[in-house]
Amino acid sequence: MKKIYSETAKTKRSKEVYMDNAATTPLDEGVLNTMLPFLKRDFGNGASLHTWGRTAGRAIEVARKQVAKKIGADKDEIYFTSGATEANNWILNAYKDKGKIVVSRIEHPSIIETCQAFEKEGIEVEYIDVDEYGQVQLGELEKTLKTGVALVSIMMANNEVGTIQPIAQIAELCKQYKVPFHTDATQAVGKMEVNVKKLGIDALSFSSHKLFGPKGAGALYVRKELLGLVKRKDAAPLVNFPAFIRGGFQETGLRGGTQNTAAIVGFGTATEIDHQPEYVRELRDYMIQRIENEIPNAFLNGPRTKRLCNNVNFSFKSIEGESILIMLDFAGIAVSTGSACSSVNLEPSYVLFAMGVDVELSMGSVRFTLSKHNTREEVDYVVNELKIIVEKLRAMSPLE
Amino acid sequence: MKKIYSETAKTKRSKEVYMDNAATTPLDEGVLNTMLPFLKRDFGNGASLHTWGRTAGRAIEVARKQVAKKIGADKDEIYFTSGATEANNWILNAYKDKGKIVVSRIEHPSIIETCQAFEKEGIEVEYIDVDEYGQVQLGELEKTLKTGVALVSIMMANNEVGTIQPIAQIAELCKQYKVPFHTDATQAVGKMEVNVKKLGIDALSFSSHKLFGPKGAGALYVRKELLGLVKRKDAAPLVNFPAFIRGGFQETGLRGGTQNTAAIVGFGTATEIDHQPEYVRELRDYMIQRIENEIPNAFLNGPRTKRLCNNVNFSFKSIEGESILIMLDFAGIAVSTGSACSSVNLEPSYVLFAMGVDVELSMGSVRFTLSKHNTREEVDYVVNELKIIVEKLRAMSPLE
Repeated sequence: MKKIYSETAKTKRSKEVYMDNAATTPLDEGVLNTMLPFLKRDFGNGASLHTWGRTAGRAIEVARKQVAKKIGADKDEIYFTSGATEANNWILNAYKDKGKIVVSRIEHPSIIETCQAFEKEGIEVEYIDVDEYGQVQLGELEKTLKTGVALVSIMMANNEVGTIQPIAQIAELCKQYKVPFHTDATQAVGKMEVNVKKLGIDALSFSSHKLFGPKGAGALYVRKELLGLVKRKDAAPLVNFPAFIRGGFQETGLRGGTQNTAAIVGFGTATEIDHQPEYVRELRDYMIQRIENEIPNAFLNGPRTKRLCNNVNFSFKSIEGESILIMLDFAGIAVSTGSACSSVNLEPSYVLFAMGVDVELSMGSVRFTLSKHNTREEVDYVVNELKIIVEKLRAMSPLE
Repeated sequence: MKKIYSETAKTKRSKEVYMDNAATTPLDEGVLNTMLPFLKRDFGNGASLHTWGRTAGRAIEVARKQVAKKIGADKDEIYFTSGATEANNWILNAYKDKGKIVVSRIEHPSIIETCQAFEKEGIEVEYIDVDEYGQVQLGELEKTLKTGVALVSIMMANNEVGTIQPIAQIAELCKQYKVPFHTDATQAVGKMEVNVKKLGIDALSFSSHKLFGPKGAGALYVRKELLGLVKRKDAAPLVNFPAFIRGGFQETGLRGGTQNTAAIVGFGTATEIDHQPEYVRELRDYMIQRIENEIPNAFLNGPRTKRLCNNVNFSFKSIEGESILIMLDFAGIAVSTGSACSSVNLEPSYVLFAMGVDVELSMGSVRFTLSKHNTREEVDYVVNELKIIVEKLRAMSPLE
C-alpha cells in the first residue's frame, strides 16, 4: 500500500490555530485510545453471537449508557446513527405522514433541506421566524401549535451564530398542545447542560465529532413514552416508531446496519470530556471585545447573552467572509463562513438572512468557534492577523 | 477516563479461529495506518474551505478513486454512505414512488425489510423465487419485467449460502426491458471480479468492513446515465436522483452529513488488498470435503460451483445451529448461524426456506466464512472440534 499522505500544506506552516470547532473537533487522544482495541483485535460484529461479537456488543452497550447519561436519558432511549444529520433525517421522516411539521427558519441544513424535500412531496411545513438575534418567536410558535401539528423541531443552539433557544419554554408549549418536540442539540451538548428530562424534550439529535469524539457516530434520543412503550397523556404516542435505515436487529430493530463499534465506543468516552465552558466563554468575550474595540465596522452577529460559549461571529463591512477565511488560512488559522459545516456553499447565509442582517453584511460574516484547546495568545494572534487582513481587503474593496 | 475494556473473555482462550468473515473482517493493519493521520492531526471537516478541511477533502477524493476503480466505475459515480445497509435503503427509496420494485427472496435484510415496509405503505413489491441452490429463476424475472417495473435489485452473491447469481444475464434482461438494475455486492467484492461496466450494472452497494477495511463506510455506485447526467437509451434516467440523508453539500449534495474521513480513507486503501480468492477457494473445498466425509448427516447448503470462494454452509441433522455455534465459541471458533450479520435473530433462515430446505434442517445450519488469514491447520482444528460437538449434541438430541 502506497503512503499517499506524506505531506500536507499544514506541515509547512509555523503557526496553527484551529477555530472551527463547530464544524468538527480534533479527536481526543484518550478517546482514540479507547477506540483502538476495536480497530484491532476486538473487531467483531456487535450482532454476532460468538465471543468476538459479544465483546463488541458489550462495548456498544457501555457507550449507550455513557451517551444516555450525558443528556439525562435512559439507556434504552438512545439509538446510534452515523451522525446527527442521519438522526435529524430520521425523526422528520418518522413524522412525515402524520401532519404538519414545524421548524425554525435557522435550523441546520439537515432539517431545512429535508423539510424542503417534504414540501415538494406535498407535506406541509411551517417555518417559524426568528428575531434579529436568532431567537424563535414564541408567540408565532404558539399560534401555529393551535393549528394541528405533528412535530416541532427547533434546535437547541444555532451552529452559525450560537443563539441558544428557550428550549424549556418551547418544550412546555409543545406539551401544552400535546405535540412531540424534537431538538437538534448537536452544537449545544458539551457547551451547556442538556438534560432531556428536566427540559421536557421528546427527541434529540447529537453527534460525537463535535465533542472531541470520532466522526461516524451520532445518536437519536427518543423518549420512551413517544414510542408508545409507556402510556403518556401529554403527547400522542407514535406506536411502531418507524426505522429509517432498515435491515437487521441492531438498535432494537430500529436502525439496521453493522454498528460502528470503534466510533460508538469513542462517542461514549467523549461524552465524559470536560469542555471547560467557563474558560471558553471568557476567551469568547475577550475575543469579541478585542474585535469590537480594534476593528472598525465589525458587527457581532447573534446575541450577546444566550449565546454558545464558544461562538464568535462577526460581519466585516465591505468585504467578503470568504476572502477573510482564505487569508486567515494562509496565516494558519481555521475559521468558517456562511452556514456551518457546508462551507463549500458560498451563498449568503440563510441564517443571517432570517435574522434580518443586510445581505452585503451577511456576505462578510466570519465564524470563529473556540474550544478549551485555544489560548488567549491564540486569540491575540488571530485578532492581530484579522486586523491586518481586514485593512488590506478593505483597501482593495470596490465597496469601500 | 476509565479503562473499561481491560479484559475480554477472549484473552483467556488459547485458540482463536475466526471464520465469520461474512459478518465482518478484521481491520488490516496497513489500512489502519492510512486511517490514523485522520484520527489524529488531519481531523478537519472535509466540507471546510481551510487547510484542515481541504486535507480531509483531498483524502476523500483519493479514496473515491480507489473505490471506483475496485468496481470499474468512474470516480463521480461513487457516493459514500455509512455502509451497504444505508446504500441499499437509499436505492430502494429512490425508486419507491416510481412503480413496482422487484427483488429476490434471498436478499439481505436491508433489502427485504425495506421492501416489507414499502408494502405496508401500499408499494408493490415482487419477490423472485430461487431454486434449491439459491439461484434466481430467470424465466420468472423475465415474466415480471414485462409487467412494468421501476427497479430490479438482486444481490451479486448471497451472504448466507454464498450463491453467485448470473448477474450479467440479469443485467442484460433488465436492459432489454429498460429497467434499472441494482445489485448488492457486499459479499462479492474482493472475492470475485466485479466490474459494473462489463456486467452492465446500473447501481451497486458495497461496504468497507467486509474487505478488511473499517466499519462505518460504504458506497452506492450510481451509473451516470441513471442520474440523467448522460443521455441513455436503454434505461429510463432518474433525473434529480433523490438524496436519502439530506443536509449539506457533501457527496455532490446527495448525501449530507460530515464525511467520516478516516473510515472513507480506510475503505479506499482496503480496496487494494488482495483477498487471495484461489487460496481461499481451496481451503473452502478442503473444508467441505472433510465435513462431508467425516460427519454423517451433514448437508451442504447452496451450490457447489457458482459459490463464493469463502463460504461453507452446512446443516447438521437433529441439532440446532445455535448450539453448535455456542460450543464452537467455547473452543475459540467464531462462526455464524441463521441469516448473516443479524445472528441475534434465531428464527429459521428465510434464505434456506426460500431454497426449499426442510425447516428442521435449516435450524441446524452453520455458516463458516473463511479468509486468506485462515489456514489448513485451522480448518483441521475446526472440523475436528465440529465432529466432537455434533456427536455430543446428537447424543443429547430428542430428535435423534
